[in-house]
Amino acid sequence: MDRQDKDLAWMLQFENIAWYEDGRVDILDRRIYPIEVRKLSCHSHQEVAKAIKDMVTQSAGPYVACSMGMALAAYECRGKRESEQLAYLDEAAYRISHARPTTTWRMQKICEACISAAREALSGGISDVSEVIKEFAIEQNNKRYAGIGIAGRYLAELFPNKGAVMTQCFAETIVGIMLREARAQGKDIKLYCPETRPFFQGSRLTATVCHDMGFDVTVITDNMPAAVIKNEGIDIFTSAADVICCDGYVVNKVGTYQIAIAAKYHGVPYYVSGAPDQGHQSIDSVHIEMRNPADVLEAMGTPTANPNVKGYYPAFDITPPNLVTGVVTDQGVFDPYKLADYSAGPDDFLV
Amino acid sequence: MDRQDKDLAWMLQFENIAWYEDGRVDILDRRIYPIEVRKLSCHSHQEVAKAIKDMVTQSAGPYVACSMGMALAAYECRGKRESEQLAYLDEAAYRISHARPTTTWRMQKICEACISAAREALSGGISDVSEVIKEFAIEQNNKRYAGIGIAGRYLAELFPNKGAVMTQCFAETIVGIMLREARAQGKDIKLYCPETRPFFQGSRLTATVCHDMGFDVTVITDNMPAAVIKNEGIDIFTSAADVICCDGYVVNKVGTYQIAIAAKYHGVPYYVSGAPDQGHQSIDSVHIEMRNPADVLEAMGTPTANPNVKGYYPAFDITPPNLVTGVVTDQGVFDPYKLADYSAGPDDFLV
Repeated sequence: MDRQDKDLAWMLQFENIAWYEDGRVDILDRRIYPIEVRKLSCHSHQEVAKAIKDMVTQSAGPYVACSMGMALAAYECRGKRESEQLAYLDEAAYRISHARPTTTWRMQKICEACISAAREALSGGISDVSEVIKEFAIEQNNKRYAGIGIAGRYLAELFPNKGAVMTQCFAETIVGIMLREARAQGKDIKLYCPETRPFFQGSRLTATVCHDMGFDVTVITDNMPAAVIKNEGIDIFTSAADVICCDGYVVNKVGTYQIAIAAKYHGVPYYVSGAPDQGHQSIDSVHIEMRNPADVLEAMGTPTANPNVKGYYPAFDITPPNLVTGVVTDQGVFDPYKLADYSAGPDDFLV
Repeated sequence: MDRQDKDLAWMLQFENIAWYEDGRVDILDRRIYPIEVRKLSCHSHQEVAKAIKDMVTQSAGPYVACSMGMALAAYECRGKRESEQLAYLDEAAYRISHARPTTTWRMQKICEACISAAREALSGGISDVSEVIKEFAIEQNNKRYAGIGIAGRYLAELFPNKGAVMTQCFAETIVGIMLREARAQGKDIKLYCPETRPFFQGSRLTATVCHDMGFDVTVITDNMPAAVIKNEGIDIFTSAADVICCDGYVVNKVGTYQIAIAAKYHGVPYYVSGAPDQGHQSIDSVHIEMRNPADVLEAMGTPTANPNVKGYYPAFDITPPNLVTGVVTDQGVFDPYKLADYSAGPDDFLV
């Protein structure tokens, strides 16, 4: 295993993202990573929900934290009557899945699957199902990585043999797997990562993953993508998504929309990775999360504006299908207007 | 004079921007303003050139610093023979005007005008022409404000009676005068200011001016303009420019280009203020300044990325005329393709 593969293995060992053990869930704090590698210990499922809300973990991390949080909830109600445990798990599922409104449907599906596993174990006479849910969470994550791995291969096939790729925001698994596949396919690519204000996920996280994987990576500020597309010869713009609606609308970190507009203006394709979200047949059912406006009035903890001015912070924006060249899934690349052709299965919410 | 007018008066008292006195030039340090109001004292014209290069002053500030720097250069060579003084001033003009490559032509014109005034005074027997140049600098600035004032009135006339305006970067005089004119015309507008990384001129400076002038102002990060244009109903996008070429290409703070693309995509007009730059008949003669890549790898002095990744920092980008709705000058609003209709005069470089 060479250095890059070790780095990828580290990134993909999801106990580093969120891990249940001995009545607590430890979550890698991505708000400070990689400048500092620190874990936040949550001693109740409520604390897990709060950590998700506070963006301690991001990208696919909340889904892992979600199932591990359910394991912790099971630990909290261990030994109680079966019906009481199930009622407790239902309440925990509601709390955890509603921590972030835009991805609630997907988190609900994960929680429901955990509760199904718990129900079976409880009816089989196990009184503490926390380990059952933890094992189930690991299994879910393996399926997630497998699905993303296939999508990553399809995505890497779209790259030029030699060229430049623009990313947006962080997706540790997608970016890591995509780059592993790109290398396996012998693609010589360099990456441009917009920094992704206000939390700098692009400069702190995406760029670090790209660098650790041994690729040439350049960080730019969020006002530069159009100029870079024009002047530096970007071949592909690509991102993951928080929600891909079945009507082809893409919900992702704010900024995706304007890069997609700029890409279209320059004739550069935009490919989004992930599976269509069966819980959102159209964009109409998506609720865009508004976060604390004060977050945009500071940078890395230092105020950047007069305290009397207002801020505005939508976590995500919406890119319409006319700006999306293709949706890269575990079943191949789809036209955003033809996502009905994707064969929906019971585990799609994992991809 | 009400509070807002006092604030504007303060902003427009250009001794606050750069001022020659007693063998030194004091420059308001906009890299830290308004969190701190501090002046940098330059004791040689070389230090003035360095301050311009280091972006101690921005927007129209470098033009003021430029002429005040010439007054300081005159002080430095006072008492020498006329030919020696003129040679010294020529050298100082070269150094100061080349401090920032994109605006060199305009600074050369300002320096040439200062040298003409100096030559006349020297031939009239004055041996220290520093005060002559200073007086000339004040006169130049009054002309500048007069020209911008007329353009600001034309610009404000384009605003809706009630609506929202998106700005880009800092232009203390343009923004201040534009808002004064908007108020005089009874326009009820709110402003959205992208923060303008990496130096945050939008959040620190533009937003502060808007707030001090009594307007409703919201700071957004640089990845939000398209989403805000779509969701918040922006009526006009407007900016000043570092260079407006005679063929309608606009050179301004990086980010302008992608907001202009997003504005066009949403059918929102983009108006740029300033006079066509007679020194740039086409965009081909403009040199885009590349600044220190390390600047994009930190925010307010705190590192934001792995120290091993690369940065990329073009100070400006280029917006083509097809994205420009109109050029708002002291002679009215021009189609960007018809800037030849602008009647070029000897003092145009001041507007």
